[in-house]
Amino acid sequence: MTPQLLSLKKEISRKKLDAILISSVANIIYLTNFSYFSHYEREAFLLVLKNKQYILTDGRYAEAIKENTQNFDLIEISSSLTFEKTLKNLAKKHRIKYLGVEENNLTAKEHKKLSRLLNDLSHFTVADLRMIKNPSEISAIEEACRLGDKTFEHVITLINRGVTERQLGFEIEFFIKKHGADISFPPIVAFGKNSAIPHHKSSDKRLTTKDKIVLLDFGAKVNNYCSDMTRTVFFGKPTRKQKRIYETVLEAQQKAIEYLKSLIINHKSIAAKEVDKVARNYIISKNYNTIPHSVGHGIGLEVHEKPIISPKSKDILKAGMVFSIEPGIYIPGFGGVRIEDLVVLENFSPRLLTHSSKDIIQL
Amino acid sequence: MTPQLLSLKKEISRKKLDAILISSVANIIYLTNFSYFSHYEREAFLLVLKNKQYILTDGRYAEAIKENTQNFDLIEISSSLTFEKTLKNLAKKHRIKYLGVEENNLTAKEHKKLSRLLNDLSHFTVADLRMIKNPSEISAIEEACRLGDKTFEHVITLINRGVTERQLGFEIEFFIKKHGADISFPPIVAFGKNSAIPHHKSSDKRLTTKDKIVLLDFGAKVNNYCSDMTRTVFFGKPTRKQKRIYETVLEAQQKAIEYLKSLIINHKSIAAKEVDKVARNYIISKNYNTIPHSVGHGIGLEVHEKPIISPKSKDILKAGMVFSIEPGIYIPGFGGVRIEDLVVLENFSPRLLTHSSKDIIQL
Repeated sequence: MTPQLLSLKKEISRKKLDAILISSVANIIYLTNFSYFSHYEREAFLLVLKNKQYILTDGRYAEAIKENTQNFDLIEISSSLTFEKTLKNLAKKHRIKYLGVEENNLTAKEHKKLSRLLNDLSHFTVADLRMIKNPSEISAIEEACRLGDKTFEHVITLINRGVTERQLGFEIEFFIKKHGADISFPPIVAFGKNSAIPHHKSSDKRLTTKDKIVLLDFGAKVNNYCSDMTRTVFFGKPTRKQKRIYETVLEAQQKAIEYLKSLIINHKSIAAKEVDKVARNYIISKNYNTIPHSVGHGIGLEVHEKPIISPKSKDILKAGMVFSIEPGIYIPGFGGVRIEDLVVLENFSPRLLTHSSKDIIQL
Repeated sequence: MTPQLLSLKKEISRKKLDAILISSVANIIYLTNFSYFSHYEREAFLLVLKNKQYILTDGRYAEAIKENTQNFDLIEISSSLTFEKTLKNLAKKHRIKYLGVEENNLTAKEHKKLSRLLNDLSHFTVADLRMIKNPSEISAIEEACRLGDKTFEHVITLINRGVTERQLGFEIEFFIKKHGADISFPPIVAFGKNSAIPHHKSSDKRLTTKDKIVLLDFGAKVNNYCSDMTRTVFFGKPTRKQKRIYETVLEAQQKAIEYLKSLIINHKSIAAKEVDKVARNYIISKNYNTIPHSVGHGIGLEVHEKPIISPKSKDILKAGMVFSIEPGIYIPGFGGVRIEDLVVLENFSPRLLTHSSKDIIQL
């Protein structure tokens, strides 16, 4: 049995549940290592009991499940043996009364149906388990980050007059896929004033010498684990205003990382919202608008997961967590700068997983 | 105002609702044509009233919304002006009492929170509106299908000894993206016995002369609209058994399409489940196992949407609907064949949107 499954079973006991129904695809991958299911549609459930666990899916995946998963008994659902019928049977067989479900993943409709089968549904989340990464998870993220750095090195050689945002996005994606990995999300490539849109969708805009700013935000996925990084470079000499913005963002990021270091060294507990505040307040102190997003987010099987490093976060940062630190300044109609790295918290220090240069790059 | 928005407003009145909260990304695209939001995370809501409509999202998208959408008033949500607070304000301002929500898209947790704000939530679905496509939607799907056909023509030139499933999948994806489109889902490429897995995940398996069967299932997305097609070709001469399977699947598909034609000509109503039955029963009559999936599915902004052509479907097929017809035979450890085309129902006939050859292709 995997450590993940063991931890989950401990939670079942601790919460006095009879079983847990897992529905989110990321959690199914976390527990089974089986990554074939669509992220868009409901194709499978796991039912985990104290001493047994089932995977419920339809005939399309039966063969692949048999070949690729251990520990789980396969139950093939179909239009005659529906998911509801199967769950009813299993609840009876194993005397399941208290069932934990993922309320932030099940739809309201699914939840309604389930509550007709079982009275005692309660919310259960795997997010807290997933927050602390084990060494093999960290090394998968690290490998994804290495590929991210390589991709950055490659893509900056392609930043030339006339290239479009979409073309660069395409090159990032293909470079990553050619290396046998996947992308963690569609790359964001923003030229000039488009960089003022934090989640800009790459367009057919061509790069001109007037644009100057080139913002690149992308990630690779290796063995299902994601990386995420942002660099902002300049096509031609940055203006004084652009340079000042860049240096402010970089300083904000460094201050947040330094803050993390100082707390770890002093064995102090680190509230995520305090880390957010350090970067955010520095930017505000320089008379820029506040950051229109959180300063960081956890990452792993999903590109955004716990902990969240935001003004209202209740998360406490601990050894084994991997997250981004990504302050930014965005000026509508002018442009923006964001710098993003991934950090793993280790026992005595935070360690950067992305290593691309943060000196001002002028192409 | 767009025809989509007009139809939705009629539904609001017809159902005696005060407003509808739209949460699914596909429906947001359907109503606003704005396609930047992530499919993985909740980033926006639409609140549609009889005489007004809002888009609620955070600062990351504000600029892009202003530039790209009309008809909708933007409300920027943030950690101080949360989504709940905003909705509460709007409910008060517009005296919203009866709110329709997408119960098959909202999570159970979101639904709980909402029901604390408003007592009268009821289920609302846009699926029925989306089922009937207008001419511009059909022409987007048609364009996606044309690119699919071109992709097939290209990819069969790359089927050579030693190529891997993943490489062919990669070539399909890159060909589609090089043409400025997106893929509708990760391409399925299955060699030999892998083709017995209807949703096989492309692996590093290399093609050998022993494999024979090459199953390719993929789609392009043009202007947010999807295509979907499957062809099964042979690397070398198919065995007699393989040929018989192929011919049975093709005949099953043709029988289903003929059945559609005969009903339309006679102005009869067409129950989707009857179309499923025609293909399914033909395959069973030839002593193969039943198809482990439905015979077809609607397609549009999503690769799977209503109508569903399955044994238990209650959908009635009507002019303006676009759907797949894709019977298959799968023999574990041996291999499988699936043939899939898209069909649009027109007033006097079904019309195929995919045109790649279905003769036995021997490479």
